[in-house]
Amino acid sequence: MNTVSLLTDFGHKDNFVGIMKAVILKINPQAKIVDISHEVKPGHILEAALLLKSAFKYFPKGTVHLAVVDPGVGTKRKKLLVKTRDYIFIAPDNGILSLALKEERPIKIIELTKAKYFLKPVSDTFHGRDIFAPVAAHASREESIERFGRKIKSIKNLDLPRPKAGANALRGEIIYIDRFGNLTSNITGEAFKSFIKNRRFKICIQGEEINALSHSYSQAANSRWPVALINSFGYLEIAVPGASALACLSANIGSEVLVSGR
Amino acid sequence: MNTVSLLTDFGHKDNFVGIMKAVILKINPQAKIVDISHEVKPGHILEAALLLKSAFKYFPKGTVHLAVVDPGVGTKRKKLLVKTRDYIFIAPDNGILSLALKEERPIKIIELTKAKYFLKPVSDTFHGRDIFAPVAAHASREESIERFGRKIKSIKNLDLPRPKAGANALRGEIIYIDRFGNLTSNITGEAFKSFIKNRRFKICIQGEEINALSHSYSQAANSRWPVALINSFGYLEIAVPGASALACLSANIGSEVLVSGR
Amino acid sequence: MNTVSLLTDFGHKDNFVGIMKAVILKINPQAKIVDISHEVKPGHILEAALLLKSAFKYFPKGTVHLAVVDPGVGTKRKKLLVKTRDYIFIAPDNGILSLALKEERPIKIIELTKAKYFLKPVSDTFHGRDIFAPVAAHASREESIERFGRKIKSIKNLDLPRPKAGANALRGEIIYIDRFGNLTSNITGEAFKSFIKNRRFKICIQGEEINALSHSYSQAANSRWPVALINSFGYLEIAVPGASALACLSANIGSEVLVSGR
Repeated sequence: MNTVSLLTDFGHKDNFVGIMKAVILKINPQAKIVDISHEVKPGHILEAALLLKSAFKYFPKGTVHLAVVDPGVGTKRKKLLVKTRDYIFIAPDNGILSLALKEERPIKIIELTKAKYFLKPVSDTFHGRDIFAPVAAHASREESIERFGRKIKSIKNLDLPRPKAGANALRGEIIYIDRFGNLTSNITGEAFKSFIKNRRFKICIQGEEINALSHSYSQAANSRWPVALINSFGYLEIAVPGASALACLSANIGSEVLVSGR
Repeated sequence: MNTVSLLTDFGHKDNFVGIMKAVILKINPQAKIVDISHEVKPGHILEAALLLKSAFKYFPKGTVHLAVVDPGVGTKRKKLLVKTRDYIFIAPDNGILSLALKEERPIKIIELTKAKYFLKPVSDTFHGRDIFAPVAAHASREESIERFGRKIKSIKNLDLPRPKAGANALRGEIIYIDRFGNLTSNITGEAFKSFIKNRRFKICIQGEEINALSHSYSQAANSRWPVALINSFGYLEIAVPGASALACLSANIGSEVLVSGR
Repeated sequence: MNTVSLLTDFGHKDNFVGIMKAVILKINPQAKIVDISHEVKPGHILEAALLLKSAFKYFPKGTVHLAVVDPGVGTKRKKLLVKTRDYIFIAPDNGILSLALKEERPIKIIELTKAKYFLKPVSDTFHGRDIFAPVAAHASREESIERFGRKIKSIKNLDLPRPKAGANALRGEIIYIDRFGNLTSNITGEAFKSFIKNRRFKICIQGEEINALSHSYSQAANSRWPVALINSFGYLEIAVPGASALACLSANIGSEVLVSGR
């Protein structure tokens, strides 16, 4: 149990992430630290939750997933360690774990209270360094998780907005935009297929209409027409092959995606 | 054979790179993964080819170089493993390896066809995760490369634009711009010297004229005059000490660099 | 002595950092390399010095700290290895180490002169690759540091601007701005407390007045009022909870922070 994944909104310009890694290695020199992302939009818990949900299962069993997007640092929000069958998750109790934990149920939830595992003194503004990193390092050494605090029953929940299914239309929205400007909606591949069945359909976004699902980004390469596909994380995605759908469609987080028969 | 280098256009904001690393570590927990760059301009195969060519030789012998800039993901383009004397290269067959493989000749080329080494199911949009990362991980465990597919004879070639040598002038162009705004031309140090011999020369770019080669960025520090030098990768480079030549000269990829006697 | 930290202004788009890591791993395959930051503003030695000073102590004892912000590369500036009680520092002699070395005194200073530890040939523009990385790798193998060059007595010093204490006011300035737009001043928590004692105070910056110290970013969350706090590195910091103080206050490096009684 030596791999530690890191997910934060700390960016790459400061030394915050490097310091967290230093703290981890000082406690567990064998730790293998893997960055999931540090470019979560500052304070955007839901974005981090989505990145964690779609990444965590690819890691080796026993990985400690450390997720610190923590706008409430220094307030009364709890600090968590959650054990599931295959992983340990460590994070502030603000919903950042809730999407991952819908896919892999918690077996045990610990509120981190044992100060002997924290750095001293604990600052009020950098619990990533002072609390979460040292606990993650200890947990990656397969220490019994009960020693980090007291068992609790539940954690803060956070949900993706759900698509609204009417008789004639499935109304979703853009929930994530990747580096290429591809637009991920909150409509899963399953939801899409079960709504459409074998009907002909159209997908409308920002005034554009798409009448088919593509398999890859290349089918319409260079045509600059938007395409729709079920992406590698299982969601309906709008892309413009060879370009940025974000830019071409002037879309954004929250933009409506309307699926209907035709 | 435990080091795996990674070169992609996946950026740092998404979880794509972290997921590829997770997949690698799940298969080979001993792998040492080193990022070459993930900020290749989306889909720019030639830029990636150049970064790989100028980096690969510094790695330990036996390194598996994994390069995924893959605008054709999901189409019929082949997936490659190439063995050279000192390294293994894994990439889509789109030319990304061609500059490196001019410096270190292929000994064996394998088209990746054995699905048993891929993740299941294989998506059409993220072969970095589903095909290339797992094969790289297996290859880094020194598994016999023949088992990954069938031997083929050749791969797609891609060339840098070549400088044009006339009687009086050597006409090159800018092929890469680094973080500091330094402008790398396609004129190698050898080509420059063999053209100029012992003559006096001028180098013209964007209306500016440079009459000497500098050894370092500091010779004209803070003067904001452009200088020319043979850079650490062996190419003629235009720089503005203490500033960005990109900005100062309003140059870009493709800007002409004209070398002539005077 | 296997951990090597890296701090540069090389950014993430080029292959410079990856090449340095490759060079290190070729010499010491056991090295654990941790990035402190590579997004130091190009050539800004003081920014790098500050990042190093606030990070280095969190690393395991024996870490080799390699810091390359080196606008003088290729000139006569010295190349240094500095041994302290717990760490080894390797860097150009331009002041980048001076803030860290105020916290942990040098025991031995070596000027790097032994070319047998450098790559060959040594370029004039990339000593990070050709000199500093290979020496750091050798040093991380616990080789005797004397073999890297000759002992010298002193290194170039660089200071943070000091706050000016008058009878009625303590006049500081912004010296660092983090990813969140939080503004770090050059006034330490101790200097602030010893100036204010038990008096009521005001902190003025860019026309705004703050009358209390907060403990965390959340106390005024979403109010968009600036708050002042002693940050996790011990300095007086101005922040706007849930937003960027940089943007809200139109502040910058050098903006005045005035502390006075009221």
